[in-house]
Amino acid sequence: MLLHLSTWAEIEQFLKRSRTIVIPIGSNEQHGPTGLLGTDWLCPEIIAREAEREKTADILVGPTFNIGMAQHHLGFPGTISLRPSTFIAAIGDWTRSLVGHGFEKILFLNGHGGNIASIEAAFSEIYAEASFAGRRAGFALKLCNWWDLEGVGELAREQFPTGHGSHATPSEIAITQWAFPAAIKLADYAPKIAPSGPIREAHDFRARFPDGRIGSDPGLATPEKGEALVRLAARSLAQELDSFGRELIPA
Amino acid sequence: MLLHLSTWAEIEQFLKRSRTIVIPIGSNEQHGPTGLLGTDWLCPEIIAREAEREKTADILVGPTFNIGMAQHHLGFPGTISLRPSTFIAAIGDWTRSLVGHGFEKILFLNGHGGNIASIEAAFSEIYAEASFAGRRAGFALKLCNWWDLEGVGELAREQFPTGHGSHATPSEIAITQWAFPAAIKLADYAPKIAPSGPIREAHDFRARFPDGRIGSDPGLATPEKGEALVRLAARSLAQELDSFGRELIPA
Amino acid sequence: MLLHLSTWAEIEQFLKRSRTIVIPIGSNEQHGPTGLLGTDWLCPEIIAREAEREKTADILVGPTFNIGMAQHHLGFPGTISLRPSTFIAAIGDWTRSLVGHGFEKILFLNGHGGNIASIEAAFSEIYAEASFAGRRAGFALKLCNWWDLEGVGELAREQFPTGHGSHATPSEIAITQWAFPAAIKLADYAPKIAPSGPIREAHDFRARFPDGRIGSDPGLATPEKGEALVRLAARSLAQELDSFGRELIPA
Amino acid sequence: MLLHLSTWAEIEQFLKRSRTIVIPIGSNEQHGPTGLLGTDWLCPEIIAREAEREKTADILVGPTFNIGMAQHHLGFPGTISLRPSTFIAAIGDWTRSLVGHGFEKILFLNGHGGNIASIEAAFSEIYAEASFAGRRAGFALKLCNWWDLEGVGELAREQFPTGHGSHATPSEIAITQWAFPAAIKLADYAPKIAPSGPIREAHDFRARFPDGRIGSDPGLATPEKGEALVRLAARSLAQELDSFGRELIPA
Amino acid sequence: MLLHLSTWAEIEQFLKRSRTIVIPIGSNEQHGPTGLLGTDWLCPEIIAREAEREKTADILVGPTFNIGMAQHHLGFPGTISLRPSTFIAAIGDWTRSLVGHGFEKILFLNGHGGNIASIEAAFSEIYAEASFAGRRAGFALKLCNWWDLEGVGELAREQFPTGHGSHATPSEIAITQWAFPAAIKLADYAPKIAPSGPIREAHDFRARFPDGRIGSDPGLATPEKGEALVRLAARSLAQELDSFGRELIPA
Amino acid sequence: MLLHLSTWAEIEQFLKRSRTIVIPIGSNEQHGPTGLLGTDWLCPEIIAREAEREKTADILVGPTFNIGMAQHHLGFPGTISLRPSTFIAAIGDWTRSLVGHGFEKILFLNGHGGNIASIEAAFSEIYAEASFAGRRAGFALKLCNWWDLEGVGELAREQFPTGHGSHATPSEIAITQWAFPAAIKLADYAPKIAPSGPIREAHDFRARFPDGRIGSDPGLATPEKGEALVRLAARSLAQELDSFGRELIPA
Repeated sequence: MLLHLSTWAEIEQFLKRSRTIVIPIGSNEQHGPTGLLGTDWLCPEIIAREAEREKTADILVGPTFNIGMAQHHLGFPGTISLRPSTFIAAIGDWTRSLVGHGFEKILFLNGHGGNIASIEAAFSEIYAEASFAGRRAGFALKLCNWWDLEGVGELAREQFPTGHGSHATPSEIAITQWAFPAAIKLADYAPKIAPSGPIREAHDFRARFPDGRIGSDPGLATPEKGEALVRLAARSLAQELDSFGRELIPA
Repeated sequence: MLLHLSTWAEIEQFLKRSRTIVIPIGSNEQHGPTGLLGTDWLCPEIIAREAEREKTADILVGPTFNIGMAQHHLGFPGTISLRPSTFIAAIGDWTRSLVGHGFEKILFLNGHGGNIASIEAAFSEIYAEASFAGRRAGFALKLCNWWDLEGVGELAREQFPTGHGSHATPSEIAITQWAFPAAIKLADYAPKIAPSGPIREAHDFRARFPDGRIGSDPGLATPEKGEALVRLAARSLAQELDSFGRELIPA
Repeated sequence: MLLHLSTWAEIEQFLKRSRTIVIPIGSNEQHGPTGLLGTDWLCPEIIAREAEREKTADILVGPTFNIGMAQHHLGFPGTISLRPSTFIAAIGDWTRSLVGHGFEKILFLNGHGGNIASIEAAFSEIYAEASFAGRRAGFALKLCNWWDLEGVGELAREQFPTGHGSHATPSEIAITQWAFPAAIKLADYAPKIAPSGPIREAHDFRARFPDGRIGSDPGLATPEKGEALVRLAARSLAQELDSFGRELIPA
Repeated sequence: MLLHLSTWAEIEQFLKRSRTIVIPIGSNEQHGPTGLLGTDWLCPEIIAREAEREKTADILVGPTFNIGMAQHHLGFPGTISLRPSTFIAAIGDWTRSLVGHGFEKILFLNGHGGNIASIEAAFSEIYAEASFAGRRAGFALKLCNWWDLEGVGELAREQFPTGHGSHATPSEIAITQWAFPAAIKLADYAPKIAPSGPIREAHDFRARFPDGRIGSDPGLATPEKGEALVRLAARSLAQELDSFGRELIPA
Repeated sequence: MLLHLSTWAEIEQFLKRSRTIVIPIGSNEQHGPTGLLGTDWLCPEIIAREAEREKTADILVGPTFNIGMAQHHLGFPGTISLRPSTFIAAIGDWTRSLVGHGFEKILFLNGHGGNIASIEAAFSEIYAEASFAGRRAGFALKLCNWWDLEGVGELAREQFPTGHGSHATPSEIAITQWAFPAAIKLADYAPKIAPSGPIREAHDFRARFPDGRIGSDPGLATPEKGEALVRLAARSLAQELDSFGRELIPA
Repeated sequence: MLLHLSTWAEIEQFLKRSRTIVIPIGSNEQHGPTGLLGTDWLCPEIIAREAEREKTADILVGPTFNIGMAQHHLGFPGTISLRPSTFIAAIGDWTRSLVGHGFEKILFLNGHGGNIASIEAAFSEIYAEASFAGRRAGFALKLCNWWDLEGVGELAREQFPTGHGSHATPSEIAITQWAFPAAIKLADYAPKIAPSGPIREAHDFRARFPDGRIGSDPGLATPEKGEALVRLAARSLAQELDSFGRELIPA
């Protein structure tokens, strides 16, 4: 089920058979000369909705959390970022809303490496409410990057033995090419494989990575490779949700 | 253009010919027995993307701000809400990101009445930075509810002379029916027209409005009426953006 | 009773017969060439204290919340403003203090249009505590602008068929003229009726409205008209408090 | 001048001859069986307005900051308190508003001992903006308790050699008796002089100080003593403002 | 016991015999030409650990809170400061952690005058949670400056009849000389006794107090005087903890 | 140099030859039946001070940030934790203080895995100030866990081929054994190697890990192994600081 296309009564029914939900979460930020600004929230949305569409499992997909922590990309037009403190507050409110309805397992399917620290900090901020109060929380939060889903990293390394890099990667661009073929963009990449380096603030970032890529050659992406990644990731996500849903929370 | 399907370089180009952007903003909340949980963010997204699709104007549509201020709906499963303070912080970060790129006119196309106060408070919070610092802000923010777009309220009143109400209205449900025909839901509404009353916190709300509707008969909605509303709203939005874009900001 | 001239024991007694209180709330901000900086907090204070003085009802008037959200007026000396976030926090603490004593109906009698959004956002922030916790709040908050009290808007339109405008209006200035005759100021207004336009940040505001008025001709104000407004508003406030006090909060 | 009864143009003129303002600040909290809930904000307001009324100096009195830090009094009905964090934020916004207009010396005339720590913390919070930014602030903030004004403590000790205590003191009650003779309340105090002890949270406070007084015998208060205190305090305040206004801020 | 050199099981045992803990708290800030940057957190740490080492009482010493509120010293390299709001939040988290384990008496042994207001504001912020909720807190917080411990001020005045001053005082410098003889620094002080004046922001501070001292002659310090101060302070601290630990909290 | 044993003038001199500082950062939390509560802040303090003591490089060691993000350990007495939001605010103030003095490279030598996400979130929060403002930050922040220093992980794996685990590890316990031989504690561990599992809130943590260890056998620790780890880590830290200090920040 897609939560946003369901009624409240349908969710009430769903909660009688499952307490698990997946929230696609990403970022809206520059992805090099040809990557879409939405890449990082589109990828987990595409994968989660594909997992739901295949109907091999009874999966509930929440709305997409589309703006993440991308302060370092603000030097490139179109990037929209939350500060970590805002991001943490917002993840908290999403979580408290869902927990209030009875959800006990919330899996955030993440599409942006830059989100990881702030999402984990958000989890700790939420858990701390129970920890400081000396009471049991009764729910579990999980962060799962789509590229860490079972088998997905291996496939990407097989598809792109060189030039994968860490930002504006051919794997993420392939996924959006498959999902949005009309929005495929082309460019001459110079250098073919982008430089690497530390990630700090936006000015520093743009000086180091003038076209926005880090260590990647997005020219290797094809819609077909994207399709293979999505299908594998969707299956692995279904398994991940199943095992997360079965996990016991200590009484 | 849809920002999320564009590259940063395309936005850089866009900024040379326009400084205006529209952000669909709504809420993910119960909409009665048959309304979709996503109704309030889907409606402005549908209208803004339709306005862009028609290509009668050079419009840039940003990502959809899909979770708003819906604390009063938290008594119904599936509702996700930000507290006003979180909502204000997040609108601030979206705005500062866009203003940093050179946008000077940001129109929030809103789909949720419960958002209005917090969006306006957010605007004041952002403007206050310049006002307290004694400097010119150099940008303008505008809140526009889709039902207040030129002619739209009149059309809705004509389509639904009775039973329109103020929550889970036939007009908003008609719009989602047109956009998502596969997700049309049916129910027997009892009473046919829902009660009205004050809006306070979630427990109070559910006690007053047991099935979630306020003053409305969603059974009056049809996809055809939805289509008419979307087409009119899209045209009016294009005009609104044009006139907002032309407006001078005092030096 | 005036809360600030009562003892705690008198309030303890009052709570045995009523759970309702009115808090005058306004702003301290420029009101054009002749309006008092305190106009927006003086007007609701004057009306609420008049309602109490007439002793036709058992009314409790709290201290006046005198600094509101007036960031757009900061370009004019003497304006003091809270940011919306501070305003929301402060209204929250006032409310939690009063609710802790057993008050169940808190009516904020407001004197400043610029406060409305932030007051409503504050209400939602407070209600959200109960809504997120899944519990009944047990109290109700109401915002009532003095010019919206039964009959008051009609009287003002009758008194000032043209030149009422929306800031530094003759009706609010008339009220302060009646209450503070020694502080009546005169000026030649040029133009007689001030311009109108959107309200944004302080620099923008001062550029659009050089003497501080919006759409008004304060020269129409007289103490006599002020007296009529106050007497009518005081009676309507007493009725409003009575009906608000009788309203049932769902169990 | 009273700021709230002035126009913005009058304040603009005042700023050409002085950069100093006094803000009465207090608290709305229980003051024992006979003390007014408003005592702590009324006393500095009475003194500051008296200093202004005597016209021996060109004094500008701002609006009264009437709700302070009184968490420990919340066990008694009628008390309204800000948390320290809210109080600090609000003092910050008041100060930034005034500094933005050109005020360079802001004296907070305080009427509540429980405010002192939070007011000083607020000053540090405001100063820290300049200190962290490595720039000159260009303004000075001063906290002055009315009972610390030149000669006032001596007079109070002379008037009340025993039974002055530290809360609901005869000196503060005498001042409100002089200003509001119609609101003088009587009671049999038992014990005559209230106990003393540490101040912690509200439950602890009410257990230690059942009628709200600390170490005081308010029965010693008379309007005549109040008048003497006000007249002396008003003169001392005028001197204090004069010397504070003359103080040089290092370039 | 030193908490940081204990195991959790040892603390669990300690809590069966005592509910009292002392937290040394100070600041890391300039202390004139010869004072150590750590002076203000070293002094209470030295005294508390000495009290524990002497084993005349069963004392538990927590980790040292080493960064305090020192915004006014930021004009001198090496100073590290929290803003009051951060300081208050951090003291709150320390306290809530300890209270959660069952500690009922937390004594903050303070080494920095500039911390006092913010520590007391922090206490009120923490207490306010119980006060607003209308419940008993069940614990007590105490601020004790080391120079206010029984007899210590008298000894310091005896040791340094002139030139003690209020910042970079010979007494605090003597204590660090005794504890860190290898880090004793020498300088020619000009003037011998530093000037005094108000404390505001960092720029103002450095202009008034060019070498960082206020009213003091640190050249009077000797390790021997430091030892005497520490020994007396340690004994007085043990007594203070004992009497604080015995104090009853009202039911 | 140790900053806390230096004067401001010595730091002013240091800044003429270096812009780099190392801040030991950790946590005060339970470390199983025999580990010290201070383990996680003592380890980086020990290593950093050893690096400084060896005088092979001109290193400046700041005060130790001793309380970190340990909400999951709050179920064990003696743990003191900041919430992530407080931790982020505090790291921000430390950093802004140091940057204000001219430090351009701040290396946080971390001793607690649970700190990592929040420290990185803190860096982003600080960098975001420059990124949102569209200006160059001019400084770089680096997080370095002591076990990730060149060669250290390899040595630990060699010393403890099994039973190293991830909390209350023999390597960290060995380090504190070497530094505090008088505080070595013994216990029978049952099971010998502790279980592993996910880390969530405090109640969940204590249920999964009853004696506080995760996957470790602290009985393998010896002071000699600790000494080897410290000496290697100290040398690697000196190299790390040197290369970090030489790194160019883009203009």
